[in-house]
Amino acid sequence: MSKQKKLKPELASGFKDRKGNELILRDRLIEIIKRNFQLYGFEPLETPGFEILENIGKFLPDENRPMAGVFGFKDDKDWISLRYDLTAPLARYVSENFDNLSKPFKRYQIGTVWRNEKPGPGRYREFIQIDADVVGTKNASADADMCVLLADTLNKCGLDKDQYLIKVSNRKLIRGLLEDLKITNDSKKLTIIRAADKIDRVGISGVKALLGKGRKDKSGDFTKGAGLKENQSEEIINFLKIDNFSILENLSSNSTFKEGINELNEIFELTKLNEFSNRIVFSPSVVRGIEYYTGAIFEANLLFKVKNKKGEEVEFGSVGGGGRYDNLVSRFTKSTYPATGVSIGLDRLIYAIDQKEKEKSKDDNPVIICVFDKKQMAEYNKLLILLRASNINSEIYCGDGSLKAQMKYADKRNAPAVILYGDNEIKSGTVTIKNLKLGKRLSLEAKTREDWTNSKTAQITVKVDNFVNEIKELL
Amino acid sequence: MSKQKKLKPELASGFKDRKGNELILRDRLIEIIKRNFQLYGFEPLETPGFEILENIGKFLPDENRPMAGVFGFKDDKDWISLRYDLTAPLARYVSENFDNLSKPFKRYQIGTVWRNEKPGPGRYREFIQIDADVVGTKNASADADMCVLLADTLNKCGLDKDQYLIKVSNRKLIRGLLEDLKITNDSKKLTIIRAADKIDRVGISGVKALLGKGRKDKSGDFTKGAGLKENQSEEIINFLKIDNFSILENLSSNSTFKEGINELNEIFELTKLNEFSNRIVFSPSVVRGIEYYTGAIFEANLLFKVKNKKGEEVEFGSVGGGGRYDNLVSRFTKSTYPATGVSIGLDRLIYAIDQKEKEKSKDDNPVIICVFDKKQMAEYNKLLILLRASNINSEIYCGDGSLKAQMKYADKRNAPAVILYGDNEIKSGTVTIKNLKLGKRLSLEAKTREDWTNSKTAQITVKVDNFVNEIKELL
Repeated sequence: MSKQKKLKPELASGFKDRKGNELILRDRLIEIIKRNFQLYGFEPLETPGFEILENIGKFLPDENRPMAGVFGFKDDKDWISLRYDLTAPLARYVSENFDNLSKPFKRYQIGTVWRNEKPGPGRYREFIQIDADVVGTKNASADADMCVLLADTLNKCGLDKDQYLIKVSNRKLIRGLLEDLKITNDSKKLTIIRAADKIDRVGISGVKALLGKGRKDKSGDFTKGAGLKENQSEEIINFLKIDNFSILENLSSNSTFKEGINELNEIFELTKLNEFSNRIVFSPSVVRGIEYYTGAIFEANLLFKVKNKKGEEVEFGSVGGGGRYDNLVSRFTKSTYPATGVSIGLDRLIYAIDQKEKEKSKDDNPVIICVFDKKQMAEYNKLLILLRASNINSEIYCGDGSLKAQMKYADKRNAPAVILYGDNEIKSGTVTIKNLKLGKRLSLEAKTREDWTNSKTAQITVKVDNFVNEIKELL
Repeated sequence: MSKQKKLKPELASGFKDRKGNELILRDRLIEIIKRNFQLYGFEPLETPGFEILENIGKFLPDENRPMAGVFGFKDDKDWISLRYDLTAPLARYVSENFDNLSKPFKRYQIGTVWRNEKPGPGRYREFIQIDADVVGTKNASADADMCVLLADTLNKCGLDKDQYLIKVSNRKLIRGLLEDLKITNDSKKLTIIRAADKIDRVGISGVKALLGKGRKDKSGDFTKGAGLKENQSEEIINFLKIDNFSILENLSSNSTFKEGINELNEIFELTKLNEFSNRIVFSPSVVRGIEYYTGAIFEANLLFKVKNKKGEEVEFGSVGGGGRYDNLVSRFTKSTYPATGVSIGLDRLIYAIDQKEKEKSKDDNPVIICVFDKKQMAEYNKLLILLRASNINSEIYCGDGSLKAQMKYADKRNAPAVILYGDNEIKSGTVTIKNLKLGKRLSLEAKTREDWTNSKTAQITVKVDNFVNEIKELL
């Protein structure tokens, strides 16, 4: 069997391996977010990757692929499918366990989701979502707490308060305007909402085109518009332009619209004491493209620019958002379970924070103890035991290479230091520490040949008793 | 669409929801394990859930199901499949990225795996595996470090040193014996190895039967045996009975057997200085059922009994193990990449530690601030801000229920305390704290009617300035 043609080691498109610092940063952020969600009274829930297809089938994001965008699989009895988000499984879970749940029910979930969509640059078919939801209350205090939670979470993840804004609006505002304009067709409504949602990317004129006949983008692709009349478009655009919550009232006397204003007022009233109150602001440009929102909607936007892979500065937009959806559980039961929730886009957050933090990223790579002579393994082990007891990531080189190979290994591992403990050192009770971190910096800064030579020998020899402290200082 | 027949909210068999304390404990253990793997110099890697089916197709654990036990899916180009373990993806990753990797390459991975096997009680089709591996060295120091890592990890997870043993053996021992016995048929060899591996479950007599004609278990099911002759079986059984490493040498002069002894000697020599040295012991009963092991093999066994769901005390067996496998990457390349690794069974570990810890599990449930009057939300918010600033999980009740409903909610959430901040308290600058934790204990211990009444009113009223400290003490 091993004689057959060798396989080609590769992944299917739309999937990728992740490693090293990206994972360390990701795990750190997940830890912070999880802790903060608990602080706000959310309990953890983990639904499995697979759900019965029919149970989560109605809210699929992309209808243009086989199985409408999911990874479906024929099981013994039913078709089952990998989840494409965490909200549809929540609806299933709440319906299934309603009697045993606290009312309201507050849960967070961090989990992988899969979308069988056409992959593209930076667009994967598998990614992590982080959600917090409250199910079973219409109370605005639940929405208000979501906004504070989002602001506080970004802050704890390492963003300064002036680096983001939580923009808040309410679906009832645009719904009220659509009632005013006598637009009743559901699909037309959705087209208008999606057009408005694009304002950050395409600007006012772009939205105007999408509300009217349609819009041709830079690549020449044409998106058909909602076909509104000029005066209808104007009303929507006027609304989207509003930059002051207090003048909103003058725009319409429609009762749905008024309800939206009242609910927003409640949120701002409830958050005003909070340290994040000035981070939570009204913005009509928050529309959110997903159909199922029914009330308050919110979005976390970064205010600093980030660099894309080409090194160009780009607007980053949203790293999270959510809103109120009062009808999601209705597919399972006649009861209504009003709900509100927030979702954080982990990959985007990592990308943004990574750029901000590049300089100060912590050194997690291990200190390497070199092997001069296998007969001395016991001596090396003594050092290793001391390092690990001090919580310092460390290892004895475990391959069979020469000292040169060991140095190459340490370099590849990005090790902060290498321990040289040869016969001379062992005899004299000393340890030589090669400071690779310093060495790297010196060689980067080197101006003369002497500097450069020094950078190669950034090492000290210290007493064994003292070597753990020296390493600690070095790290 | 919403008028159609309501769906039944349920999961496919073999999947389950997880929640609350189980997840809190799991996440805590994962954190500890991850930190310890880093301490030992392993870097994180995360391969995606899907691999190209052909690339991981050869080591499937169960050939009796469609697609040989995996969840396969027809993609645009290839069949892709959810991974069934983390080792096959590692082999793919190493082959794909060999030139860029450190030599040796040390990585850990924590990830969900899926098996499309017949589900049973406690046997799920989706679970988490935790692996650490070193690829690219035959060095026994890598195997030795695996044993120490396993022992240290269990210790850090909360097990005392006398509660577990790392049993070590070497595949070359049994391979040498099979050479002595002139058994050359691969499938027969595997049957013998799997028979020997069952010694903890079926005892010496059971193994004897499995080596011979076969064995009928309690339920009457018959497993066909390896068909060895009496004297052949005897040799294997004699080996399995050995309880002292030093007498092993007398058993055979076969060169493979001797190699196995030498490699074991090296491991014990390398671990002897370690604080876990007496936790790492030779045991011929460690065989491991998986075919691909080629050298050292190890298994972590718990020494205390745990209770099953019926409350019966049962032997628990292994919570992790691993070994050396030197040929796994050979499907992709002609080069050999000798490797050794360890895998921890997270669900089993959680189960064992949960039983040990039941009493001292930390209280992560939120303190609930009751809502008497929505006009006073600002006042409640002031208390909430103080609690959260002190890192105390807390929330204002966010539903619309009466005070009775709020108490029921707090009870359902298993809240340690409820904050009552009514008009009287607000006026007098005090806060009433209802201690639900104490209340529960008192009501359980109550002997008289008076005790019981007291348990219902386990509450104190304190100055606002002092209330956070009181809550801290209560927790």
